[in-house]
Amino acid sequence: MALIVQKYGGTSMGTPERIRNVARRIAKFQAQGHQVVVVVSAMSGETNRLIALAKEVQAQPDPRELDVVVSTGEQVTIGLLCMALINSGVKARSYTGPQVRILTDSAFTKARILKIDEDRMRKDLEEGCVVVVAGFQGVDDAGNITTLGRGGSDTTGVALAAALRADECQIYTDVDGVYTTDPRIVPEARKLDTVTFEEMLEMASLGSKVLQIRSVEFAGKYKVRLRVLSSFQEEGEGTLITFEDDIKMEQPIISGIAFNRDEAKLTVLGVPDRPGIAYQILGPIADANIDVDMIIQNVSHDGTTDFSFTVPRGEHDRALGILEGVKAHVGARELRADRSMAKVSVVGVGMRSHVGIASKMFRTLAEEGINIQMISTSEIKISVAIDEKYLELAVRVLHKAFELDQVPA
Amino acid sequence: MALIVQKYGGTSMGTPERIRNVARRIAKFQAQGHQVVVVVSAMSGETNRLIALAKEVQAQPDPRELDVVVSTGEQVTIGLLCMALINSGVKARSYTGPQVRILTDSAFTKARILKIDEDRMRKDLEEGCVVVVAGFQGVDDAGNITTLGRGGSDTTGVALAAALRADECQIYTDVDGVYTTDPRIVPEARKLDTVTFEEMLEMASLGSKVLQIRSVEFAGKYKVRLRVLSSFQEEGEGTLITFEDDIKMEQPIISGIAFNRDEAKLTVLGVPDRPGIAYQILGPIADANIDVDMIIQNVSHDGTTDFSFTVPRGEHDRALGILEGVKAHVGARELRADRSMAKVSVVGVGMRSHVGIASKMFRTLAEEGINIQMISTSEIKISVAIDEKYLELAVRVLHKAFELDQVPA
Repeated sequence: MALIVQKYGGTSMGTPERIRNVARRIAKFQAQGHQVVVVVSAMSGETNRLIALAKEVQAQPDPRELDVVVSTGEQVTIGLLCMALINSGVKARSYTGPQVRILTDSAFTKARILKIDEDRMRKDLEEGCVVVVAGFQGVDDAGNITTLGRGGSDTTGVALAAALRADECQIYTDVDGVYTTDPRIVPEARKLDTVTFEEMLEMASLGSKVLQIRSVEFAGKYKVRLRVLSSFQEEGEGTLITFEDDIKMEQPIISGIAFNRDEAKLTVLGVPDRPGIAYQILGPIADANIDVDMIIQNVSHDGTTDFSFTVPRGEHDRALGILEGVKAHVGARELRADRSMAKVSVVGVGMRSHVGIASKMFRTLAEEGINIQMISTSEIKISVAIDEKYLELAVRVLHKAFELDQVPA
Repeated sequence: MALIVQKYGGTSMGTPERIRNVARRIAKFQAQGHQVVVVVSAMSGETNRLIALAKEVQAQPDPRELDVVVSTGEQVTIGLLCMALINSGVKARSYTGPQVRILTDSAFTKARILKIDEDRMRKDLEEGCVVVVAGFQGVDDAGNITTLGRGGSDTTGVALAAALRADECQIYTDVDGVYTTDPRIVPEARKLDTVTFEEMLEMASLGSKVLQIRSVEFAGKYKVRLRVLSSFQEEGEGTLITFEDDIKMEQPIISGIAFNRDEAKLTVLGVPDRPGIAYQILGPIADANIDVDMIIQNVSHDGTTDFSFTVPRGEHDRALGILEGVKAHVGARELRADRSMAKVSVVGVGMRSHVGIASKMFRTLAEEGINIQMISTSEIKISVAIDEKYLELAVRVLHKAFELDQVPA
């Protein structure tokens, strides 16, 4: 008998019929003798509906009150799922974040979990109950309702698994696992049976979007065994997220090709190369709450350098406007902007101990005539910025070059 | 400076624009130096939407889980109203029933309030905050979310006023007070400046539907000063519900004409007149959860009697079906049913000390050729059942006969 935490997202909770399907799946697990704690998101679209309603009342909704409103989305689904379970003859009891209680700090709309009381859940499990907990929400020390920010239900799932020392935390999504790359672009893309936490972090932040990045960090920190599965398929083992300790010798060098389509590149040319210049350029961008992704500054020549960075495409115009002001201030020569960039990355913990990955990547792209505009690397990934029109081609040839369509020996 | 509890219903909370209007009204009260606690219902239609959703998942929703789902309706409106208040520069803080905390028994979907903690509200009021509380909900001793049943937001308002020893509890509705009868039927109908609790109870139960009957009982028990006002009119004093102690000597004999259109009459003829017969007839009706209103049994002759009662029209067919079985069992001679009945009542605490009210009522109806089919009386009302087609005429002539269109001297 195992204790399993399962998390179901908004799509799985989207209709009464789907909720009944989830209930059947849970009932099957319980019938196998497992104890099950379930974390659910709001019905798909509901959180956005509530936020839109709030904005109709107050353009910038008060954060405390926004959390009061938005947290109702998950409160509805925990009740509905328990009804479906009870209807299938399974004992079930729902809890909101405050009821559990999931104690957080008081950072409304982006609270962090501090502590989870497990007593009540433990008692219900011992009575043979399925425990259904609202994701994405908690309560602060003063009794105020808080939310963890978008996608926080994954984090709730992992945090509950950590608190209960669960045998596994299963995240059910609309994909059946983590793939070597997006199967819509590369039909030969292969589901990975395992992927390391670090690779998962790189994949998530690079746009694979299977798991919320915070939940992956959390699972790594508390050593929670985490598995991604499809909520629409009855069978399948999904992808298990592993710790590096578990990595087998035959771990492939590269695990996958991640990419992000919607980027824009901004370059400040002829910047005097003096201390503090990076801050003078990026400070105003950060102050405007624009996320910056890749940042490149190469060595200077003749006392000036070029400074490039990428932002989400939707922020291109705002960022450019800010740079116009910065340009005169820092005495730069010129601004250049390109709003049709894409980023492609090869990811793999194995590349640490292997040379030649970067050169193989660059050669593969060169053979297809794809120009690399920016390069940035970390311990376990190499990212390049390229013209967006070459994105699909780049992903396909890299996938083939690194033999990701082959099952590792 | 007064402490006022205001309650706004679902229609007043129906759209962001209406919510902003309510916020402006509250801001005006606060600007006058009053402390304000506000109780709100869910947006109109929302509670029904949530119940329908629950029934799609489980035909007979589990009561505990239904309360979890349905209580989200008011949680959304407390947040939205606070946003509107904060947007108008008014400090405001929302509380769910459990947050207050409004302690109830554990009768899910129809819980009763046991105790209200006032400390947190008191503290906020002292800090100049408007306190906004979700109506209709509470929490039981074990921490489960409960609801008070439909219309329970009025009860929450009165209960908070009692706990806080508020100077007044104002119930805002879509009418501007209690009228001598329905102005849609009698254009001369007059708004009452005051009405007694007992009259209000009779009016509410007879279909005037301005206030939920439980909240009126509650206000009477805890001596809460209760006022009904319009949420759509800026001016007006509404109708104050008074205690009998306050009644002035010039209290009119009759306060109003109440009526209920949707009744059906069922009569069991030739019932042997023996002990237990009323129970044998009405027991199966009650077991089927059919509400019975008027019950009439007159003296017997030749050892048999006739037994009549009224039910909501929608229950006519079910009730008749049940009586078919009862008829043989009790040895009755015949069943008669009439599905187009209406009930008209004259209500007034003054009638206690005045004879001749009943005869005046009967004479007035007789002069118009309206046949009285059933009569039932209480200390402060006389009700008659008549053919539905005479309803409007009966209400109009009685309103005139008792001079309700005249302002009392």
